[in-house]
Parts: sequence; C-alpha cells; structure tokens
Amino acid sequence: MRNIMMVIEYDGTAYHGFQKQAGSGLATIQETLEETLRRLTGEEITVTGAGRTDAGVHALGQVINFNTRSSIPEERFPYAINALLPPDIVAREAREAPADFHARFAAKSKVYRYTIYNERTPTALQRLYSLHVPVKLDVAAMQAAAGLLVGEHDFAAFRAAGSSAKTTVRHVTRLNVEKDGPLIYFTAEANGFLYNMVRIITGTLIYVGKGKLTPEDVGSALESGDRTKTGPTVPPHGLVMLQVKYQ
Amino acid sequence: MRNIMMVIEYDGTAYHGFQKQAGSGLATIQETLEETLRRLTGEEITVTGAGRTDAGVHALGQVINFNTRSSIPEERFPYAINALLPPDIVAREAREAPADFHARFAAKSKVYRYTIYNERTPTALQRLYSLHVPVKLDVAAMQAAAGLLVGEHDFAAFRAAGSSAKTTVRHVTRLNVEKDGPLIYFTAEANGFLYNMVRIITGTLIYVGKGKLTPEDVGSALESGDRTKTGPTVPPHGLVMLQVKYQ
Repeated sequence: MRNIMMVIEYDGTAYHGFQKQAGSGLATIQETLEETLRRLTGEEITVTGAGRTDAGVHALGQVINFNTRSSIPEERFPYAINALLPPDIVAREAREAPADFHARFAAKSKVYRYTIYNERTPTALQRLYSLHVPVKLDVAAMQAAAGLLVGEHDFAAFRAAGSSAKTTVRHVTRLNVEKDGPLIYFTAEANGFLYNMVRIITGTLIYVGKGKLTPEDVGSALESGDRTKTGPTVPPHGLVMLQVKYQ
Repeated sequence: MRNIMMVIEYDGTAYHGFQKQAGSGLATIQETLEETLRRLTGEEITVTGAGRTDAGVHALGQVINFNTRSSIPEERFPYAINALLPPDIVAREAREAPADFHARFAAKSKVYRYTIYNERTPTALQRLYSLHVPVKLDVAAMQAAAGLLVGEHDFAAFRAAGSSAKTTVRHVTRLNVEKDGPLIYFTAEANGFLYNMVRIITGTLIYVGKGKLTPEDVGSALESGDRTKTGPTVPPHGLVMLQVKYQ
C-alpha cells in the first residue's frame, strides 16, 4: 500500500467546507477528492486533510494524504487527478510519503492569510476572496496589537464558544499585518489554531483598526481568556489556508 | 438634465459582454446598469460605455456616462447604485460631467491588462481571471517582441477577421510584459484598440514565449498586415479593462 501526500488548492466558494458530511448531500472538498480518486483508481479511498477548513474558506496549500494501490507515478498524480477534478479544486504537487505520514498529526505549523479590502466602495473582482471594510483602518495600531499576540499564549479569548480543544495554549510564531494598495493582509502562523481563531484574531484587529479597541485592550483580552472581550468572527471568504509545514 | 460620469468595476464571468443585446434575454453589463438606474431614479436611462467589452472580459476602470434628472449628489451616486447592483458590478466613483461629455468619444486612451498563470498545474483561486499556460514562457523574448509593437502602426494583422474599423492604424503607447511569481501580466495602452487586438497581441506574444514565433516574426507580421501570421485570439477571461484616460 502506498501513502501519497498531495498539496491542494481550492476555491471554497461552492463548498460546505473540507470535511465530509455523510448523508448531508452537501458538496465538500474531501468528498469531491475521494470521489475523484475513486474514479481514477477504482479504489475506495479515504482522504485526510491537514486542516478542516470551514464552509467558504479557500486553500492555496492544503495538504492531504491517502493510501492507494494505484501504480500511477507520484509526479503524474496531479495531472491525472486534475483532469477529473472540477476547476475550483487543483492538485499542485504529489509525493510518495512514509507509510506513517498523517497530514494532520505530522504538521508542525500552519499558515493562514486573511484579506481585507479597505476602500469606501466594495470590490467586484476580489469580492469572493476578501472582506470589504469601508472605514479606513489604522494599520500601525493593528500591527502593534498583532505583536502582542505573537508567542506562546492561552488563546481561550480567541476561540469559538463551545469548541472543545483539550488545551487552548498555542504558539503563534508570526502575525503580520501588511497593506498593499486597497488590500490589507493578515498572515498568521502557529503550531495549531483553535476553532475560528484566525477569524476572531482578524475581527479583533479590525476593531483595533477602527479604534473600538486599543492594542492594550487586546493584551488584556488575551490575559483574561474572555471571548466577550475580543472582536467578532469575520466571514469565511477572506480566509485562505496558505501552507502547512512538516519540519 | 445632468450628465453623470461613473467609473465601474465588474466581474465579467456571468455576463454576455458590456453591450445591451435587445430581446436576447442575455444579461449584459449595460442592461444591468440601466435597469438599476431605472429602479434608482424612476427614469429610462441609456448608459454609454467607454469600451464594449466582450463576453467574459472584466473591468476595473470602465467609464460610463448617462443623462438624468435625479437630484442625487454626485458623491452619493456610487453608494446609492451599489446598494441595488448585484455584487459582481460596483460603481467606484461618480462625477458631474459637462453636458457634451461622451465616455467613448472623449476617451484619449485605454489601458487593458491580460493575465497569464504560467505554472505546470492550473490555478483554482485565479482561474476566473487568468489564462493557464502550462509551458514555461520566455519572458525576455516576449518583452523584445512587445517592444516592436509600441508606436503608431497599422495593426491589421492583429484584428479579428471581419471587423470593420475605418482605419487599422493605432498608436500603442505602452506594451509591458511583467512577471510576478507564477503570473505574467501584459499591459497595453493605446489611443484605441481594434476588435480583439489585445487578445491577439497576447496570443502572439505567447507564441513568442513558446518559441513558435521569434520577435522578428512579429515585426514581419506587423508589416505584412496579415492576420494569418499572428497568434491565436486568447480567451476573454484573462482580460481586464484597467483604465480609460480623458487627458
């Protein structure tokens, strides 16, 4: 049995998230990949993803792995599967992995990016991949607040209510806020993220950019562990899973 | 009667081009704008566009003008109309124009950009706004060929067969080929473009990038005026009307 690791890009607009929802009739990324691999190989294949992205979230570098008896050479896998996949899902590369490689458990860190379109009028061409914020945001204040979140902290104040992670401590190694014309990019890297953590961090930093919270408020919110002291969960369509790192 | 000039952005994916196609039942940008302005003002309004973009072509800076008796202040027009437009069409700005201003006839130059995604595997996230070319292109050769097209020339070899412009002489003031990661941008500015001219120039430069034509071949094709000596018309979805200049 081979274990194939693949890097996947997808436009999440038309999907109800990554994870299969048995019997729901809703299209998901995992289901589409499994169905396509079944057509390609004739096998029943289970796909494991590094991250279970939510409905509407995109990926440039989601990583999956799956077992197969297929003899397709590793470098041919992307072409073979892309010929059968819908155009909003693309396999970018494939590699033969050790038998025990698990896309989720082996991940050392993940990188996500959230994109804001910060102009008075909305955007037509980037509407599916960015959140429109019409009020001018204070980028320097957002950068100052972001700096306070870098490091190993208890991020209980930045997770969705009702989520059930065993520990809420995570190590954020990068949280950049960069402006490029009308776009503002939030790039976050951590050894793991709590449920909705990137979207709550972004919502909180937007509050800072609007002057509704100060960077100091964000520091206190982090210490308090209190979800009511952080900003709203921003919508999924501005979020892209950029990269998964394994070393 | 007021004459309002507006800058419009749109995602052409869902539209059968800019121009109204009476009785066809096909959605066009002009029709959608006119119907929205009718709802906003109660008037029957005719919209004039600077360029009649083809089905699937996008715009970041299309310019329109229209006459209205509405008393909406110019700076409020974008917000009023954006509240009624579908999200793939956005009014970016509006200005009161002189009574004789005509978005098409007054245009001094237009700027178009064509985007190539030059990677072996396709792109999911940019599939609607770029053409996938899997073969590595020689950017330096394309830049050399592009340089030969700048200036005032007879572009008969670069227009769609059957088009009926009175003269095929145009002045191209800019034709840049720039690489940015996997993307290659062709930016063309001219006092006017023949039908399909930007898409034929792009198709010809891609042939140069693939080594099917040399820059010298492009020079000879230009001189010959022979459409059979230039490259194919590339698909519309990589094309964006960037800007219209009036002075």
